[in-house]
Amino acid sequence: MTGIVKTEIQRPEHMIVEELAAAGVATVHEAMGRTGLMRPYMRPIFAGARLAGPAVTVSLPPGDNWMIHVAIEHCQAGDVMVVAPTSPSEDGYFGELLATSLKAREIQALVVEAGVRDTRELTEMRFPVWSKAVSAQGTIKQSLGSVNVPIVCAGVPVAPGDIVVADDDGVCVVPADHAWAALEAARERLKKEDAMRQRLAAGELGLDIYGMRERLAEKGLKYE
Amino acid sequence: MTGIVKTEIQRPEHMIVEELAAAGVATVHEAMGRTGLMRPYMRPIFAGARLAGPAVTVSLPPGDNWMIHVAIEHCQAGDVMVVAPTSPSEDGYFGELLATSLKAREIQALVVEAGVRDTRELTEMRFPVWSKAVSAQGTIKQSLGSVNVPIVCAGVPVAPGDIVVADDDGVCVVPADHAWAALEAARERLKKEDAMRQRLAAGELGLDIYGMRERLAEKGLKYE
Amino acid sequence: MTGIVKTEIQRPEHMIVEELAAAGVATVHEAMGRTGLMRPYMRPIFAGARLAGPAVTVSLPPGDNWMIHVAIEHCQAGDVMVVAPTSPSEDGYFGELLATSLKAREIQALVVEAGVRDTRELTEMRFPVWSKAVSAQGTIKQSLGSVNVPIVCAGVPVAPGDIVVADDDGVCVVPADHAWAALEAARERLKKEDAMRQRLAAGELGLDIYGMRERLAEKGLKYE
Amino acid sequence: MTGIVKTEIQRPEHMIVEELAAAGVATVHEAMGRTGLMRPYMRPIFAGARLAGPAVTVSLPPGDNWMIHVAIEHCQAGDVMVVAPTSPSEDGYFGELLATSLKAREIQALVVEAGVRDTRELTEMRFPVWSKAVSAQGTIKQSLGSVNVPIVCAGVPVAPGDIVVADDDGVCVVPADHAWAALEAARERLKKEDAMRQRLAAGELGLDIYGMRERLAEKGLKYE
Amino acid sequence: MTGIVKTEIQRPEHMIVEELAAAGVATVHEAMGRTGLMRPYMRPIFAGARLAGPAVTVSLPPGDNWMIHVAIEHCQAGDVMVVAPTSPSEDGYFGELLATSLKAREIQALVVEAGVRDTRELTEMRFPVWSKAVSAQGTIKQSLGSVNVPIVCAGVPVAPGDIVVADDDGVCVVPADHAWAALEAARERLKKEDAMRQRLAAGELGLDIYGMRERLAEKGLKYE
Amino acid sequence: MTGIVKTEIQRPEHMIVEELAAAGVATVHEAMGRTGLMRPYMRPIFAGARLAGPAVTVSLPPGDNWMIHVAIEHCQAGDVMVVAPTSPSEDGYFGELLATSLKAREIQALVVEAGVRDTRELTEMRFPVWSKAVSAQGTIKQSLGSVNVPIVCAGVPVAPGDIVVADDDGVCVVPADHAWAALEAARERLKKEDAMRQRLAAGELGLDIYGMRERLAEKGLKYE
Repeated sequence: MTGIVKTEIQRPEHMIVEELAAAGVATVHEAMGRTGLMRPYMRPIFAGARLAGPAVTVSLPPGDNWMIHVAIEHCQAGDVMVVAPTSPSEDGYFGELLATSLKAREIQALVVEAGVRDTRELTEMRFPVWSKAVSAQGTIKQSLGSVNVPIVCAGVPVAPGDIVVADDDGVCVVPADHAWAALEAARERLKKEDAMRQRLAAGELGLDIYGMRERLAEKGLKYE
Repeated sequence: MTGIVKTEIQRPEHMIVEELAAAGVATVHEAMGRTGLMRPYMRPIFAGARLAGPAVTVSLPPGDNWMIHVAIEHCQAGDVMVVAPTSPSEDGYFGELLATSLKAREIQALVVEAGVRDTRELTEMRFPVWSKAVSAQGTIKQSLGSVNVPIVCAGVPVAPGDIVVADDDGVCVVPADHAWAALEAARERLKKEDAMRQRLAAGELGLDIYGMRERLAEKGLKYE
Repeated sequence: MTGIVKTEIQRPEHMIVEELAAAGVATVHEAMGRTGLMRPYMRPIFAGARLAGPAVTVSLPPGDNWMIHVAIEHCQAGDVMVVAPTSPSEDGYFGELLATSLKAREIQALVVEAGVRDTRELTEMRFPVWSKAVSAQGTIKQSLGSVNVPIVCAGVPVAPGDIVVADDDGVCVVPADHAWAALEAARERLKKEDAMRQRLAAGELGLDIYGMRERLAEKGLKYE
Repeated sequence: MTGIVKTEIQRPEHMIVEELAAAGVATVHEAMGRTGLMRPYMRPIFAGARLAGPAVTVSLPPGDNWMIHVAIEHCQAGDVMVVAPTSPSEDGYFGELLATSLKAREIQALVVEAGVRDTRELTEMRFPVWSKAVSAQGTIKQSLGSVNVPIVCAGVPVAPGDIVVADDDGVCVVPADHAWAALEAARERLKKEDAMRQRLAAGELGLDIYGMRERLAEKGLKYE
Repeated sequence: MTGIVKTEIQRPEHMIVEELAAAGVATVHEAMGRTGLMRPYMRPIFAGARLAGPAVTVSLPPGDNWMIHVAIEHCQAGDVMVVAPTSPSEDGYFGELLATSLKAREIQALVVEAGVRDTRELTEMRFPVWSKAVSAQGTIKQSLGSVNVPIVCAGVPVAPGDIVVADDDGVCVVPADHAWAALEAARERLKKEDAMRQRLAAGELGLDIYGMRERLAEKGLKYE
Repeated sequence: MTGIVKTEIQRPEHMIVEELAAAGVATVHEAMGRTGLMRPYMRPIFAGARLAGPAVTVSLPPGDNWMIHVAIEHCQAGDVMVVAPTSPSEDGYFGELLATSLKAREIQALVVEAGVRDTRELTEMRFPVWSKAVSAQGTIKQSLGSVNVPIVCAGVPVAPGDIVVADDDGVCVVPADHAWAALEAARERLKKEDAMRQRLAAGELGLDIYGMRERLAEKGLKYE
């Protein structure tokens, strides 16, 4: 079941991807019914990046980054490479040279449930990476993995072509066939939040805006 | 024992609070006899905030942020909301909308032994948060907790009205009835450190300034 | 076996140290055959520092920083103090006053497998520290340890006079007698990377540059 | 996407399940190409249980075990209930009363990526549980989850009807449509291991039995 | 605030303590409104102990067990010594010699948020310990702490004379002035559980016994 | 620096090894001046083993157990194999087949800073293993490491021929050239403990036996 590269994947419409990027991780995660969020140990190497793109998935062995080299060839401009080792590792699978290669191919970002190195250079290049650790620990190129097969990354299933949304809050994955529904729910949510924000900024309380007082009383909340 | 909101709490004198904020966490923790420091996993979402304020405490269930909404109403300008779930959680209890509400009420900051989201927006708003994790994971509004009851947050007991001091080093709690003693000890310490700093900057050694050489010799230290 | 201060240590040639600093942690770690890297929990308190220097080693008890005071006297300009407690601790062994003292002696940096405090002040002073935690927790001055004995810090053996290389990727240790070999391997590597970088930036693939396709096919990689 | 109970699931043939149970986790994991193994923090509450059964999956909120009650009704004799909260939790989702109910329905075992309580009683009842923690922390019955939807438990995707294999080494999941292939590979492996075991017990070396010496020499291994 | 030994404490009635011991941790924790439970990393060194007793509290420095010696003198038969270091430590604070001393004084058990050693001997002596770690790491006798002051142990506030309940599920603390209420609630709960157990063992479902179906439907649960 | 097998190592006298085994980890660690203890996450797979033996060291890559096969040939009866991956791993490096091979060669035990599998079979064979994790995760045989070079295992430097002492408390390493000194210190300690144990069992207090009261008073301990 290993050693497979699926060269063709279906990518979502560009417009959806862009709008989900703008909505951001927290909103998209809510729009998805609170699913799809990777574990909070997935952190960006620099603050401020906010993006979305189709996932190119990479499954590889612990301490071996060979399949990242294989995967690059099958990425398109705007893709986000999502990498998960088959057993937990914090080794440094990715650094400046690989980032140079990904950038040359206009790949947008890397999400890796492992370590990353050359963080200073990556930051200077503004190549965004979400990772579990920063580590210079070198990896080898000895064993096969697979490209564009379904994987689990940081607790979340990712299929090739799913939409990866990432910002300072972490990483969220939208399954390709939920993209439209997620987008509409996100739009709805953003609109409501806008109205909310103004009322809250004016000093109104969530208790009143959401009409929570009655339900709190029913549950037995007592003021002393 | 749950489902209680104490609406009135006693707050410390403003002057004490301000001076403790200026002294900072490390100094106040020392002035308190090295007590009151929350676990080091409590980290600020952006660097540079340094503040102190009376604690409004919130105890709530894992994955449920309803009581934060309840607590806002009972905060005053300058308060610091301190939130601890009844069992460990890294979910995102707090984000930009709640921060807008807290800011409208001039609440100074949030300390939460759980996750927080919308960190980019919170940083832009300069609303300081110390938390255990960054996570977009949504929470629900289903179960009661309590406001202004004694809690344990990140290993430290916090009573409503205790003084919370927070900066880049973490979070320290000064029990209300130790405030004066802590302040005086902090002042003393700052004065001594000032003198110390100048001598150390001039190249003198702590070994000599503190007169440690004799005690080291007594303990049997050997130079080879 | 404790309570010993070795006052004289052998330091590496300045030129080697400087060049290893410029090469950086990831390159030096590779040049060392992927050895010498401290655990990834060793993080800098501010981004951007990149340095190397001879190790002055300090072994001390949990929660006791007395030996740091002892060690300062035996450091020279450019040294890096490397501190490891004899059992795991996240207490704040080091802060602004000690940093003032180290700076006065032109000690370059601190590497400590424990906590550090006054991080704001240390950042303003630009005194670089790599540590396992940020914590204001105070330490005592009661028990002896040793200075300039071999230690294990964050998983790596460090002898006095070994070269410590540190940057945003972490900390790497070059044993004194491997310094020349490491330097030459690092130079070699940097040269190759330079050539590589240009080809990758031009869009060539690692698969082709490194000639990996044949070996991948031999291992049985299948494209679908 | 939540609040759904799929009442009918397809279960694998009994014979396959039995034989996989006998093969055990390590062998089945190998037979699956080293996939399907849950994270090693999933530990049995008592040693010696070794079993396999069709998965009935339960997705539920952190700190809320309501859906376990819902799921029982849709289990059959021999099933293994697999429970994963939607965000990490170590609360005690399951204890003696629920175990009594599962036992009455002849459900074989529980796998829960959270905490479990009443471990003494469960051990006396010989009701096997694999969990992430032992914790008496109570849970609530307030929010919906789903039964028999695809979940991720301890890093592994589990669909209803997949075969769960569990013993002292942990938990492994065999997707329903790989069951036959896994079984055949497991049989093959067991046969080979049997032969191997005898030769190794007689003092032969793996180096010779597997013919590794040549490949080691090629790779450059040096004996000194 | 350190260096204090309170020699006299108030102990709860023996009958209450015995009955809480019999009820066990999970039941008492529920009877307390789901409060008082120590973090799940507090584990017994051998299975099967189930006890309760008045807390004698010990606050001490990391890596220093001097105050345990001080505390013994102020314990009575049946007491449970509860020990928490002022900063996290996994050192071995306690072993066979101290256990011999505690046993001679008929102290029932030790609860320590740190490490313990000589676990084989302790098991043979049947002296029960709940600890955070097993570690042979030696501690010193250099610095004062306090005996019978309020502490926080594994996340829970403990005052001298509070009732500590401990079994295979962990450790729970009942504040002295809640003892009667906790006992009555525990009795109530045990009675209900008894009835429950019989119905569940007979194959009835919690869904029906608790009448949950209607509320599930209201919440929108759908069967497919 | 990798790919080396040192075939000849110097082993300590059998008598020393036996006596250290009988003394046990806690005593030997104390006799060594509280050094040499591996991190407390190194746990035995079954309780009750207590042994010592000369270390045969194995350094190998993450997820690759090839060098264990290489090392067996260079072990003698009574040796303890000590295995450390070059970057952290919890994979299952060792199971029943390898144990069969080690047993055939009368190797006493395995210490591995990683995972182990087939724990039920290993327990039935009574082959003792101390490991960081239990995990069935398979490893490969692709990359070289080294045998009988100095390594760091679980925080402790281990050279080939050093004496490994292991029991239910964990693992301690005695450098070969400290063996005699450690043994004598251990004997001394055991004698003293014997006397101590009797006095403590008779109800005397450590406070009095060690004469601690005066020093406690000097430090300022106050009884209230």
